Amino acid sequence: MVERENYRNAMARLGAAVNVIATDGVAGRRGFTASAVCSVTDSPPTLLVCCNRSHDTHEALVRNRVMSVNTLSAGQSDVSDVFAGMVANCADRFATGEWATLSTGAPLLAGAAVAFDCRIVHVHDVGTHSVFFGEVDALRLGDAAEGLIYFARGYHPVRHAV
Amino acid sequence: MVERENYRNAMARLGAAVNVIATDGVAGRRGFTASAVCSVTDSPPTLLVCCNRSHDTHEALVRNRVMSVNTLSAGQSDVSDVFAGMVANCADRFATGEWATLSTGAPLLAGAAVAFDCRIVHVHDVGTHSVFFGEVDALRLGDAAEGLIYFARGYHPVRHAV
Repeated sequence: MVERENYRNAMARLGAAVNVIATDGVAGRRGFTASAVCSVTDSPPTLLVCCNRSHDTHEALVRNRVMSVNTLSAGQSDVSDVFAGMVANCADRFATGEWATLSTGAPLLAGAAVAFDCRIVHVHDVGTHSVFFGEVDALRLGDAAEGLIYFARGYHPVRHAV
Repeated sequence: MVERENYRNAMARLGAAVNVIATDGVAGRRGFTASAVCSVTDSPPTLLVCCNRSHDTHEALVRNRVMSVNTLSAGQSDVSDVFAGMVANCADRFATGEWATLSTGAPLLAGAAVAFDCRIVHVHDVGTHSVFFGEVDALRLGDAAEGLIYFARGYHPVRHAV
């Protein structure tokens, strides 16, 4: 087994899109920044999100049973910073960005490269984290032509090929 | 529920690292290119990989119980193309690149930005795909200073911040 710090340094080399995960419902509105997000299958359209169980948003995801995955565009690193912890209170973070709802009631971020509106259909716990599987009920494509990647502990824009 | 094609077009906006997943053992040596890879937790160091159940490599992962995740560096898009299907036979793909073993016996790719050597500890099926959870037994950092991102159906290099 590798040491925790070695693993973290190695994972910094696996670039990933920057997403804000948001939820609303009986447990209130909460959200956090996540790079551990990926597509699982298109039949039925399903993605997954990994979330630390000690995180304020974790219980809200479990109780609300809905989540949005807002894949940030290149100009939204400020939103990433806020939801990564610059604003400590998870409910207060929504003062940054414009938010609306679509199908499930989870908040969707305006200007995101793409926003997925999901119902949580399964949760699997591993060590400190839970993996939330979400079926995509609706989605919204943004106008942005550039995405935002987190790699080597920094932000990097990526442009649509022409 | 969103349509399959809409979902695929939306997912093209979620950039991701390009990885070659490889395995060896009783079921033989197999491998494929995957972008649906992410870290789950550092305690214990665990990552996950999504794989279509119709894929040749799927049965080998189930039977071999080990896998490597080779996160490609910017100059390795040719390896990505080979393992994405340019070479149809999964066993023949290993003629491209230099391969060695470390701890589990899964093949590790020379020149990768980072290579994770994993034991498969859990499998979860969703629709057409399986999610393989791997505990990281060993890893190797490469010399590469640039990673390879797949976004909007094209390759994009990303550089280490200085």
